[in-house]
Amino acid sequence: MPIDSPIAYDPTLIAKLRGHLQAEGFAGFLVPHSDANQSEYLPPCAERLAHLSGFTGSAGAAVVLLDEAALFVDGRYTLQARDEIDAKTFSQQAITTTSPQDWLRTRLKAGDKLAYDPWLHTPGQLEAYERLCQELDAELVALGANPIDALWLDQPPLPSSQIKVLDAPFAPLSSKAKRELLAKDLVKARVDVAVISAGDSLAWLLNIRANDVPFTPLVLAYALLSADATVKLFIDAARIDQATRSHLGPDVQIFGRDQLAAQLDGLGDTKTAVRIATSATPAWIVERLTRAGARILPGADPCQLPKAKKTPTEIDGVKRAHARDGVALVKFLAWLQIQAPNGSVTELSAAAKLDGLRAENEHFCGLSFPTISGSGPNGAIVHYRVTKDSDRALATGELFLVDSGAQYLDGTTDVTRTVAIGTPSDEMKDRFTRVLKGHIAISRQRFPRGTRGQELDVLARQALWEVGIDYDHGTGHGVGTYLGVHEGPQGISKRGQGAELATGMVISNEPGYYKEGAYGIRIENLITVVQVPSPQGGEREMMGFEPLTLAPIDRNLIDTALLNESERAWVDTYHAQVCDELSPRLDPSTRNWLAQATATL
Amino acid sequence: MPIDSPIAYDPTLIAKLRGHLQAEGFAGFLVPHSDANQSEYLPPCAERLAHLSGFTGSAGAAVVLLDEAALFVDGRYTLQARDEIDAKTFSQQAITTTSPQDWLRTRLKAGDKLAYDPWLHTPGQLEAYERLCQELDAELVALGANPIDALWLDQPPLPSSQIKVLDAPFAPLSSKAKRELLAKDLVKARVDVAVISAGDSLAWLLNIRANDVPFTPLVLAYALLSADATVKLFIDAARIDQATRSHLGPDVQIFGRDQLAAQLDGLGDTKTAVRIATSATPAWIVERLTRAGARILPGADPCQLPKAKKTPTEIDGVKRAHARDGVALVKFLAWLQIQAPNGSVTELSAAAKLDGLRAENEHFCGLSFPTISGSGPNGAIVHYRVTKDSDRALATGELFLVDSGAQYLDGTTDVTRTVAIGTPSDEMKDRFTRVLKGHIAISRQRFPRGTRGQELDVLARQALWEVGIDYDHGTGHGVGTYLGVHEGPQGISKRGQGAELATGMVISNEPGYYKEGAYGIRIENLITVVQVPSPQGGEREMMGFEPLTLAPIDRNLIDTALLNESERAWVDTYHAQVCDELSPRLDPSTRNWLAQATATL
Repeated sequence: MPIDSPIAYDPTLIAKLRGHLQAEGFAGFLVPHSDANQSEYLPPCAERLAHLSGFTGSAGAAVVLLDEAALFVDGRYTLQARDEIDAKTFSQQAITTTSPQDWLRTRLKAGDKLAYDPWLHTPGQLEAYERLCQELDAELVALGANPIDALWLDQPPLPSSQIKVLDAPFAPLSSKAKRELLAKDLVKARVDVAVISAGDSLAWLLNIRANDVPFTPLVLAYALLSADATVKLFIDAARIDQATRSHLGPDVQIFGRDQLAAQLDGLGDTKTAVRIATSATPAWIVERLTRAGARILPGADPCQLPKAKKTPTEIDGVKRAHARDGVALVKFLAWLQIQAPNGSVTELSAAAKLDGLRAENEHFCGLSFPTISGSGPNGAIVHYRVTKDSDRALATGELFLVDSGAQYLDGTTDVTRTVAIGTPSDEMKDRFTRVLKGHIAISRQRFPRGTRGQELDVLARQALWEVGIDYDHGTGHGVGTYLGVHEGPQGISKRGQGAELATGMVISNEPGYYKEGAYGIRIENLITVVQVPSPQGGEREMMGFEPLTLAPIDRNLIDTALLNESERAWVDTYHAQVCDELSPRLDPSTRNWLAQATATL
Repeated sequence: MPIDSPIAYDPTLIAKLRGHLQAEGFAGFLVPHSDANQSEYLPPCAERLAHLSGFTGSAGAAVVLLDEAALFVDGRYTLQARDEIDAKTFSQQAITTTSPQDWLRTRLKAGDKLAYDPWLHTPGQLEAYERLCQELDAELVALGANPIDALWLDQPPLPSSQIKVLDAPFAPLSSKAKRELLAKDLVKARVDVAVISAGDSLAWLLNIRANDVPFTPLVLAYALLSADATVKLFIDAARIDQATRSHLGPDVQIFGRDQLAAQLDGLGDTKTAVRIATSATPAWIVERLTRAGARILPGADPCQLPKAKKTPTEIDGVKRAHARDGVALVKFLAWLQIQAPNGSVTELSAAAKLDGLRAENEHFCGLSFPTISGSGPNGAIVHYRVTKDSDRALATGELFLVDSGAQYLDGTTDVTRTVAIGTPSDEMKDRFTRVLKGHIAISRQRFPRGTRGQELDVLARQALWEVGIDYDHGTGHGVGTYLGVHEGPQGISKRGQGAELATGMVISNEPGYYKEGAYGIRIENLITVVQVPSPQGGEREMMGFEPLTLAPIDRNLIDTALLNESERAWVDTYHAQVCDELSPRLDPSTRNWLAQATATL
């Protein structure tokens, strides 16, 4: 959620919600951080969790019982949630150790009715609740309307931003080509129709973008893709102007949102084989299709994998976007090194400066997420979002962590740098260098085709484990092209399987270390998967990574004694690349600063 | 399956089976390599896959259609299956790239009936088939009797070996203590009764062993464990003598196998909450319970995790077993080095020699699996089983791979060594040393509590990936105590999640490299998970491994230039431990040989 979000926390809401639940005979209600399209950044009207609990993180869920309520967040949000929620109202739970089901198991009684909004959950997400209710002889009940909406007086309207066309050169592959590509797969899988409900899949498939949610040009609508490559798009017709209409062409039929139910029923009448995405399609749609008699084929969102495998032309655009982004970041870091030591820079002013520099870039369409600008102890809050209250000045002897990115017509960026203000302590240098060793290990690892990012995660942690420390978040997430800054199916993390790494995938490489109350360290580049020549005598097709992000890594924080020769060589090579590609675009003084910042170790 | 197995391949069976299927109106039949207790090594009567196809591997499945049949095996069995099956009758499929469902998807038609034996599949295994049949509008049908049994003239009888008691000192924890431990968890999970059907779980829970299957003292029976810590055991009463009866005590009631159905129905009548193990309980039992009206709670076999976490006293026994086993292996390797070069040793005679030496050991109860004795190209067959036809003499300039283990009252062993006969080539030394680097990387890795073996797998492969090679099997599997040589829930592999590594778990560490038609390399130790002190300034509880296996690693195959200092130190330290612990138990000449074999690099 953006810092300027209109969503206010309403402390009185939970009492009203409980009154409603009690009146309706429900024991509890699930309040996930999600919208009817499973977006990560929500349209304001879907910020129900923030409105109810005050928690503004990008992931989490609340369970409200009549006499008790809990908020479940992952390691990224432990500290933030503690600051934002009222501990007397919500008990905070680490979702990795206590799932909502674990928590409910000892509280829900036989016969209890647990309510949920079927638009906000996928069938996959509901499975664990269904198992629990079966186990406890309780009942999981889908509601016709979300009670929070009824109680939310100034709830913002549904998103209705104008749809914009994104075609060549920024979207090299035409929508027709994409639809035909997907249709082939549907035929092969004997699927007649696929439900497309993810806002990024819709945007990618139809080569359109919108402003329905902050930071990501998702198109929040629904579509039915047929095996004949035609599409039925369910969206407010007012959002589509003549240019978009003719871009979509005759193979894309427009329907109103209110016609979705009837169309789904129609698929039932004809016993159509419908692919639903277990991890994306709202349970409401699946239940409607099931009741209507359609043959449900659970699977993956058919757009997800092709969308993740960027074409060479797309990657060229992504590289151009990263060069522009690097220029802004270098100007910022050069400015910071002069301004910060005299105490005149705060987290807010630093973020404003960086955001302003980005906004000057060609093809800039906005930030890809709220800039994380954390100095000293605030840097240890993994997804820290600075506010007027939390703002603090950057002080010498402290670390400053800035995680930021932008949306450009030709690419999405996401980069984290941690810099020392003044002279860092030996411990800071030791920790930073170990995080850097992890970053390097991932970045230069080569692996056989078929490897999943998950298999590589440990390489980012080994140097930290050596001294008994770790970080509680994944090492990498997929990134879209002028789309989601978090996109599947690939990833690098301890848990989950993720997809096999394939040429053209873009993924983040961001190990970190966080010392609560003291400082935070994270080094993040976006990298892309490339094919590499198999060594002489090699038997497997080998792949590797190529860095996309172009920005210096603070040499003042590197303890070169902790790096081996090849690690030092990696830093020097990367810095040379940063210097070569960015210098021509910089003014003389910034160019000089960059030369020093990227000098060999 | 043992080499001396009575099971003969019947090439005429498939035609008879098809006749039967056609007559009954079925389009196909599933023939998994499994028995009614999901054992890995099957009782002879359950070797239906071998009887039908000739394939004798320990994992695989056949699908028989009226006009086509396929055998699905993993990378370990690619070469073996090719040798064993008739390619005209069965098309061989790599299960990792083509699952039975993938294969069936393009062959099964709407309305087709696909038959299976509900005793041989778990609900978890059937899910993918159910989804496929729903997708194709086909029908998955459970058969009342397995048609192969009707057509198998000399099918061996059900296992009925005498039950033996295994109590302290070999089973330090009493059965009563184990039952009470598990009962607590059942109460916490609100489970009334848990179905125990895995032969190793039964043996562990009741501190009994049997000879129902080769190589593993499994007890093939069924039990219902109640939340009050009492057990109903379904087994042929003739198998239980007075000593066992009094060992089991009053809390264990004995029923005939034929009384299982009635007892399950009883659980239904009382709407009992029954925990079934998705990965172990036969579908037949689950379907019976469901029809009867029981509340099914899918989960893990409650014995699995506690069984895997060996107590310190158990680990002491396991170490004693490994010392005895090491003596046999060292005597064998010393003998081999003298005999092999003169060409007088064959794969069969080598295996016989090693098996004989093991048999001399105290508490020896048999091999834990058929000794894999592969010279030259046969070493490249991952699960090679030497036969009179395949037997070949060990020749100089070749590698010899021996993977073997034994069952002792106090522990189960599993060790692989690869030795050079005469002088190895530079390539052999390079490959061997890279496999060794992987073995060392796993063995000395330290990791925070909560890490799963899967997260470490890549460390065993990095040195191979460097030169573009890999191996197509997991890096490690759990091992039981005088029980299964393969036991869950922990593991080290690219795929799957596995369980978090916990103190007392025993796991194999066995990276390898296989050059088809040339040679095979594998270095396997069993290792156990131990807690290690967190370094100064460390924040996480750290764990590591301790080697259990005691046997020299062939120094002639190590290219010391490829090892860094700490890797060389690991080898020297390990070899010193092997020498110190085994020398006192050896005759002078073997002791001298071991001293040289374990000299510092």
